[in-house]
Amino acid sequence: MTGDQTAVVILAAGLGTRMKSSLPKVMHPLAGRPMIKHLLAAVESLAPQQACVVIGAEMEAVARAVAPYPTVVQTERLGTGHAVLAAEPVLGGFAGDVLIVYGDTPLISLATMQRMLDVKRAEPRPAVVVLGFRPEDPGAYGRLVVDGSGQLQAIVEAKDASAEQLKIGLCNAGMMVVDGRHLFAFLHAIGNANAKGEYYLTDVVTLAQAQGLACRVAEGDERELIGVNSRADLARAEAFLQETLRQRAMNEGATLIDPATVYFSADTQLGRDVTVGPSVFFGPGVTVGDRVEIRAFCHIEGAVIEEGAIVGPFSRLRPGASVAKGAHVGNFVEIKNATVEEGAKVNHLTYIGDARVGAKANVGAGTITCNYDGFTKGFTDIGEGAFIGSNSSLVAPVKIGAGAIIGAGSVITREVETDALALTRGPHLQRKGWGKAFRTRKDEEKRKKQAEKGDR
Amino acid sequence: MTGDQTAVVILAAGLGTRMKSSLPKVMHPLAGRPMIKHLLAAVESLAPQQACVVIGAEMEAVARAVAPYPTVVQTERLGTGHAVLAAEPVLGGFAGDVLIVYGDTPLISLATMQRMLDVKRAEPRPAVVVLGFRPEDPGAYGRLVVDGSGQLQAIVEAKDASAEQLKIGLCNAGMMVVDGRHLFAFLHAIGNANAKGEYYLTDVVTLAQAQGLACRVAEGDERELIGVNSRADLARAEAFLQETLRQRAMNEGATLIDPATVYFSADTQLGRDVTVGPSVFFGPGVTVGDRVEIRAFCHIEGAVIEEGAIVGPFSRLRPGASVAKGAHVGNFVEIKNATVEEGAKVNHLTYIGDARVGAKANVGAGTITCNYDGFTKGFTDIGEGAFIGSNSSLVAPVKIGAGAIIGAGSVITREVETDALALTRGPHLQRKGWGKAFRTRKDEEKRKKQAEKGDR
Amino acid sequence: MTGDQTAVVILAAGLGTRMKSSLPKVMHPLAGRPMIKHLLAAVESLAPQQACVVIGAEMEAVARAVAPYPTVVQTERLGTGHAVLAAEPVLGGFAGDVLIVYGDTPLISLATMQRMLDVKRAEPRPAVVVLGFRPEDPGAYGRLVVDGSGQLQAIVEAKDASAEQLKIGLCNAGMMVVDGRHLFAFLHAIGNANAKGEYYLTDVVTLAQAQGLACRVAEGDERELIGVNSRADLARAEAFLQETLRQRAMNEGATLIDPATVYFSADTQLGRDVTVGPSVFFGPGVTVGDRVEIRAFCHIEGAVIEEGAIVGPFSRLRPGASVAKGAHVGNFVEIKNATVEEGAKVNHLTYIGDARVGAKANVGAGTITCNYDGFTKGFTDIGEGAFIGSNSSLVAPVKIGAGAIIGAGSVITREVETDALALTRGPHLQRKGWGKAFRTRKDEEKRKKQAEKGDR
Repeated sequence: MTGDQTAVVILAAGLGTRMKSSLPKVMHPLAGRPMIKHLLAAVESLAPQQACVVIGAEMEAVARAVAPYPTVVQTERLGTGHAVLAAEPVLGGFAGDVLIVYGDTPLISLATMQRMLDVKRAEPRPAVVVLGFRPEDPGAYGRLVVDGSGQLQAIVEAKDASAEQLKIGLCNAGMMVVDGRHLFAFLHAIGNANAKGEYYLTDVVTLAQAQGLACRVAEGDERELIGVNSRADLARAEAFLQETLRQRAMNEGATLIDPATVYFSADTQLGRDVTVGPSVFFGPGVTVGDRVEIRAFCHIEGAVIEEGAIVGPFSRLRPGASVAKGAHVGNFVEIKNATVEEGAKVNHLTYIGDARVGAKANVGAGTITCNYDGFTKGFTDIGEGAFIGSNSSLVAPVKIGAGAIIGAGSVITREVETDALALTRGPHLQRKGWGKAFRTRKDEEKRKKQAEKGDR
Repeated sequence: MTGDQTAVVILAAGLGTRMKSSLPKVMHPLAGRPMIKHLLAAVESLAPQQACVVIGAEMEAVARAVAPYPTVVQTERLGTGHAVLAAEPVLGGFAGDVLIVYGDTPLISLATMQRMLDVKRAEPRPAVVVLGFRPEDPGAYGRLVVDGSGQLQAIVEAKDASAEQLKIGLCNAGMMVVDGRHLFAFLHAIGNANAKGEYYLTDVVTLAQAQGLACRVAEGDERELIGVNSRADLARAEAFLQETLRQRAMNEGATLIDPATVYFSADTQLGRDVTVGPSVFFGPGVTVGDRVEIRAFCHIEGAVIEEGAIVGPFSRLRPGASVAKGAHVGNFVEIKNATVEEGAKVNHLTYIGDARVGAKANVGAGTITCNYDGFTKGFTDIGEGAFIGSNSSLVAPVKIGAGAIIGAGSVITREVETDALALTRGPHLQRKGWGKAFRTRKDEEKRKKQAEKGDR
Repeated sequence: MTGDQTAVVILAAGLGTRMKSSLPKVMHPLAGRPMIKHLLAAVESLAPQQACVVIGAEMEAVARAVAPYPTVVQTERLGTGHAVLAAEPVLGGFAGDVLIVYGDTPLISLATMQRMLDVKRAEPRPAVVVLGFRPEDPGAYGRLVVDGSGQLQAIVEAKDASAEQLKIGLCNAGMMVVDGRHLFAFLHAIGNANAKGEYYLTDVVTLAQAQGLACRVAEGDERELIGVNSRADLARAEAFLQETLRQRAMNEGATLIDPATVYFSADTQLGRDVTVGPSVFFGPGVTVGDRVEIRAFCHIEGAVIEEGAIVGPFSRLRPGASVAKGAHVGNFVEIKNATVEEGAKVNHLTYIGDARVGAKANVGAGTITCNYDGFTKGFTDIGEGAFIGSNSSLVAPVKIGAGAIIGAGSVITREVETDALALTRGPHLQRKGWGKAFRTRKDEEKRKKQAEKGDR
């Protein structure tokens, strides 16, 4: 079979009116990335010789997202057959197999696409392969009529089907492989004498049969063929994808205490013996080492967490956060573009941004790195083994030396030497009985006000 | 059909013993409001000429909750027939159609109630219409025996039903419409010669038939007829309601990344192209504009979020919070009774209460508006474009002028002029080697203690 | 039946390779405790005369966890029959009933174990009782062939079963009761002439029958017989357990607004009329009094919350936290090893560790108890009715007298007298126009940089 060439056409021109959105349909995200990107990832694994994305007018955002894949524009929306035809300038001379997939059916697997191509290339080779699936409820789907020898006889719309045909469980998923030597001839021959006046890709089957060319069927799993036309479809696709990602994480040795409440991005990497508590959100770009414990209620994106680290509950790691071996990040702590080095602790109510927290340093509760002056961002460098007292403000750019101690409540605006103590603090002032006097006065005022009200 | 008059009787006297609660059953909340309020909202849409709520003794809380609807008290609990009879002082002379519904079946839809009235008013008009439903498992429900012409023949309790009758899928939901000219005569005629010695409303059917009056059935959806008798029922009703609210939000153009973890109140308003992350809680009184992004782990009640604003993760908006166009509220931030004006940023670890944050102002991490002195609440006014340094405390009442800058760690107790810099800070003090000496001393103490232990 | 003696053998030597973990399989937690502990809790309720846990080599962690139950080591892994044989040194002379259960099937109930013993002791007493269950999909489970008189005829492996036998719904769960007078003789007689060369406990049935001894079946619920061999199984067992715990909480009078998102530990205690919001995590050791309200997004472990207290949203209570009657703990607050006394309020962005917050005290937002100096932990004592200003740092050990007031932003390092006011604060400094000048300068710099870029 070597030498077989594959081209892929991805139809992504749909407006997605039912999404009620100004975002092109295929740009809506699933597991943290636009749905078209999921499809492209599968297409990339297929390694076709050519590929081309059909987009609508004014969909530059899609063109940018799919680059370096070339795009062609379907200027009017006249049906699926018309959409594929828009690829003729790119694929007109292509003599291999052309796989046609849909940008709004983004979870089709590499295995299913490969199976379609395998059926296409099994001797005697058919001219067309249609993807079929067996939905729980075939309902309004077109039925695939297949004869005893496995030849596809017809695609019958549900509304045109006989009672007997309606009993067929095998339905048309829409994806196809068509022999490149015939594809565009077929497409030009498709008519639009139907209720909507559209050119339907499925007519390719009738045209092939009219020429005595064989058509066959490959089968796919219903769940990976969820078509996204509404937000509810989007949520259904997301749910299937999350289930897959959770299962994969568990198979690879992570404990998810309550899998249904853990949200993964498509690219989340988890090590072995990782424990993830309930209600944890992984945005894109997260790598987690072995034996890491991520407690409940964490929000993590663009971060690296090394082995044995403990994060959460209620931690937020933003892009560029790096938590080293055995380090702790605790509750109500935000880390952004900063490294928490080996064994360091940032346990409570802290914001560390644009900073380094040296190995074994201890950052007290309420510490803030003041990394922004309204114009520029500055770096805070906290040395190894330093101890930052609670409620301190470290005004960047600033360097706290190794082993230095910062007194609680200080505002540090200049460099602190290695092993030094630094603090800023007003004098302790105490006024005997002031608290009591204050309450007496306030109580008095209250009484007066109420009395005045009574007078009126 | 114009001129038909409707009265509604809502039975809400049940104790709800199985709830194991000191709160009257109908006051338990669903989607943030007492279940009786859900029912009243549907009743209000029906716009009946009269309505009346039957409550138990010592249920003033219910009477207050249902006002201005009049209440009557059922002093003893002698069955549903007896309960409706308590409404006689209010509805005794009413000659229209009396719809009887249950406070503990709060999710019945306007459509279902309207359908019951439509059946009641279809010629030839029956005297009684019973609401039926087709539960997945009919089990112990009373069966509705209907003849070929659609006349209700009998309501047969499951325990009294023949094997043949048990096969009937149509069950008695309990709700009824009864002709007001007959209702109270029927109710007075109901007997209590049964195991529990109670007066059952269902007997109205037998009494009507005995007078040769017709009875018919209207059908409702099982899910909206969940009766709440236990906390588990309550959770089931809540789940159905949440599913409905989530579906509605998605249909209207919001993306719910993980719908199952988003909790809505009945009155939550979402704009178009709103994105809601996992684990977001909407309490009562929230309005969200177009293109707002609400990230994971937010808790929002009584708040307005205008278009293009970004909230969360880990934000809490309390009643009176208003986040204007393009403003940002970030992690571990609480906003209460305060306005965050256009383009302002309150990104980390902050409490803004009883305040205004002017347009484009930047509130640093750890900022606290000290709005309470133990007696009264004060207002903090932060001007347009002001910059509040991290860990600052703004002691209300206080005004920070437009364009003013507050140094990190300051405690501001007096007005800061427009464009001024204000800060309070102790002198920077640094002691060379103090950190190292401290650690040496502490290590020494530790060694000594351990040595002493060893001696013993 | 008095006088019947019971011994329990718990098989816990399995490596759990499919868990991909360095933790012994039975030590993986469910609802906050190792799965073997769930099983031991049920065994303890059974109050057997003897019990013994069979572990593998190098499983000291399991031995410690099950203490004081004795352990025996199965040095090689040669099958279930071989594993039980390892218990001979402990139970060799035991003449009562020996119940054999599995450490990786931890949710078997006391009721099921008791039922097995009841069948074993029903006259005429069988020698062996096998636990059966009726799985939704019997698939690959061994089938239990039972004759008309209820005698177990055979355990047939699915792969050896006839088409007729495959229709049997009653499957082998693996657990058994065996007469102690026969058990070890049977075990010595088991052969290993099978594909894996292992000694199977199920062969006991054949051996008993060969001696004319009767075998019978007791039945258990499929769900409590989930065997844990992978992380996915673990998640399934956890889900069943959580469902049970949620149901129990609701039956006892708690409202769980969204039960599916509330995570309980096995020992969580809830009072009556407790309301628990969505996304609440209960770790081990939590007791909650009547009428407590726990709002969304709380993480609670090792804590006591007394009646009428309000906690959350976004509160974290760590071990040793005690929240008294009517006290409030609010958002982004962490309490550790500390008592919040009656009516006290700790409402925002605070860390209270190793401390007492006296009755009716008010702790302002951003308050930190500085309980750790890098070496030792110190105690903070806040007196009754004290008022702690926002962003204060209380450096332990320190005592704040009753009724004292601490000014906002203070760092308190020495005792504050009863009713006194204490504060540390630098002088208020204000520079007119500095903010504007700063912005002008910054803007200038920006312009210059951009101009320089343009020059290149």
